[in-house]
Amino acid sequence: MSQQSAVTVVGGGIIGLAVAWKAARAGHRVQLVDAGERAASWVAGGMLAPVAEASPGEEELLELGSDSLRRWPEFATELAADSGLPTGLRREGTLVVGVDGADRAELDMLADHLASRGRSVTRLTGRELRRAEPSLGPAVRRGLEVPGDLAVDNRVALAALRKAAAAAGVDFRDGRALRVRPGAVELADGTAHCDVAVIAAGARSGELHPGLTGRIRPVKGEVLRLRARATALPPPTRTVRGPVHGRQVYLVPRDDGGLVVGATQYDAGYDLDVTVGGVRDLLADAERLVPGLAEYALVEAIAGHRPGTHDNLPLIGELEPGVLAATGHHRNGFLLAPITADAVLAALSGAEPTATAADPGRGARPVSHDRGGQPCK
Amino acid sequence: MSQQSAVTVVGGGIIGLAVAWKAARAGHRVQLVDAGERAASWVAGGMLAPVAEASPGEEELLELGSDSLRRWPEFATELAADSGLPTGLRREGTLVVGVDGADRAELDMLADHLASRGRSVTRLTGRELRRAEPSLGPAVRRGLEVPGDLAVDNRVALAALRKAAAAAGVDFRDGRALRVRPGAVELADGTAHCDVAVIAAGARSGELHPGLTGRIRPVKGEVLRLRARATALPPPTRTVRGPVHGRQVYLVPRDDGGLVVGATQYDAGYDLDVTVGGVRDLLADAERLVPGLAEYALVEAIAGHRPGTHDNLPLIGELEPGVLAATGHHRNGFLLAPITADAVLAALSGAEPTATAADPGRGARPVSHDRGGQPCK
Repeated sequence: MSQQSAVTVVGGGIIGLAVAWKAARAGHRVQLVDAGERAASWVAGGMLAPVAEASPGEEELLELGSDSLRRWPEFATELAADSGLPTGLRREGTLVVGVDGADRAELDMLADHLASRGRSVTRLTGRELRRAEPSLGPAVRRGLEVPGDLAVDNRVALAALRKAAAAAGVDFRDGRALRVRPGAVELADGTAHCDVAVIAAGARSGELHPGLTGRIRPVKGEVLRLRARATALPPPTRTVRGPVHGRQVYLVPRDDGGLVVGATQYDAGYDLDVTVGGVRDLLADAERLVPGLAEYALVEAIAGHRPGTHDNLPLIGELEPGVLAATGHHRNGFLLAPITADAVLAALSGAEPTATAADPGRGARPVSHDRGGQPCK
Repeated sequence: MSQQSAVTVVGGGIIGLAVAWKAARAGHRVQLVDAGERAASWVAGGMLAPVAEASPGEEELLELGSDSLRRWPEFATELAADSGLPTGLRREGTLVVGVDGADRAELDMLADHLASRGRSVTRLTGRELRRAEPSLGPAVRRGLEVPGDLAVDNRVALAALRKAAAAAGVDFRDGRALRVRPGAVELADGTAHCDVAVIAAGARSGELHPGLTGRIRPVKGEVLRLRARATALPPPTRTVRGPVHGRQVYLVPRDDGGLVVGATQYDAGYDLDVTVGGVRDLLADAERLVPGLAEYALVEAIAGHRPGTHDNLPLIGELEPGVLAATGHHRNGFLLAPITADAVLAALSGAEPTATAADPGRGARPVSHDRGGQPCK
């Protein structure tokens, strides 16, 4: 692979933009092809919260996410410099809170799990939580403070990335990619020739290359955007995430008084309807945490397709010579954008893979033969 | 007043359009001025339900509404003929339903009230209601069948009216009316001269003429638009209206599988925010009546300003020679459009006022002197 390649990136979401920008500023000739469909990145809440969202059994994701989180401040600084725009990065940290006894048990399990991974978090009582965030309601009884987790305004960051990428020389091309093979991206209206193609097409990535077939599925998510009205109490300053009677909800504040509430999760194929049930649950859970939200404006209700994988880890690396994957980021596209871009850059320069946990060669979910076809009892 | 006048109608909502269309087809030269703001008519549910919405103390509104309802079928037939478009009229009738004991008491009171006004309605049990509308949930325990009440798809009707009015020769002019006086409508960008001006500017009408000052207030309402998804049960065929634990909600089906859910009511001045609390309540009440709505798509959440008056009756008639009011229709713009247009037509031809209950000379709320300034005990 030459030092300076012709690179075609498929997909204009957070991953495609980050890869294109970084590759162009490293001297590659970069074209970005995007079909103009709604990217999951446009819908996303923008939590950068590998610790608050850690889960036993997903230790590799915690490490990958933490590694990428460490890269975010420099990524944002470079992005601001290259774009001349705000990046939307917020550093107020995250509170993980719970309402009932089962929620508290979940928080305790999370705290114990994090301690076992060498990450200590502070346990807070309801009173301490309300001292930190007066908007939290009386139902909130227990919480964890995760000061290191960040958040980013997804749409602000996307705008900055588009400008930075264009300034770095990325050539934006409207078009629907149909198939990717070494040396070429076949589009609905022609072919984009290149030295290296990077597949960053989110939930649609599986359609583009045999090495991704059946490995990425759309995981629908619904998200609400609220805005504090003049008559309403101000939103929390930190990201607030919680199990509310066992159901996950997050509230991510924005610099402009906005608040993103997410997110439902459905394995439902390609479906962008916002459902009554989804909105009802998101509102109920959000109001349970912050009762003053009743007075907020509901500005937007929107759904997107996260690119899910079998183990919730992305697929980053070579599928075959000249074809790289940078996809399958599921709920973590923004969090993992810096490490993904760095890994793709390394691959473009012929270096050894860096994000090994995301090796696309790790295969599909191993089939268990233990049960020998016996039905479960 | 000449037989054929130059008429300027201020306002392009349901009332302004109906008046302009009817006046133009009667031979008047009509100009319609509209500022392009969101009319309450665009938001409305489109219930034509004077009986289902009757209330003790509002007998005049019941009679006025019933009179206008009788004119709707012919109004729609003419509108379809003149526009060549569907009018969105639905004739399936209305069910008024209730959930708890207090709701049932409210239904009984409504039935008794209607009986005292010579209108009998059929009381139905929960089982009978679900036989009529299988989508109704088990919480619905009692109801009234009001077969004569109709409904109209507000946006379909508005489109037909715009086309019919244009076909009848109405001249549409974009512009913000600032003041109306005999012979002229003063606009932000000029003056529209006329023989007769008709003020049909909804909640903004009070700003246009001293005879309306302080007599019309914006009554904010929030409305949701849902759509049955492929996986969902079909919507009810009738309009379903209910007190749900004392809170009013209505569900108005559309021919295209849509369902309008409304409406909140706030005396909050000019405010078009859709609030979290409003959406939460509408969804909760609608789902209580029709549980299958959980699977519906939430297509739109929108707010509008009804033009409220002190007694919920509109103001229709002469304010001074050459200036007519056709405003203050509150929740009943669509219902009262035919009778309002007929009353304005009669006034244009110099006939005696027909809709006397809506006489704009009836003044403000009469001040009670009974209490002689004593505080209430």
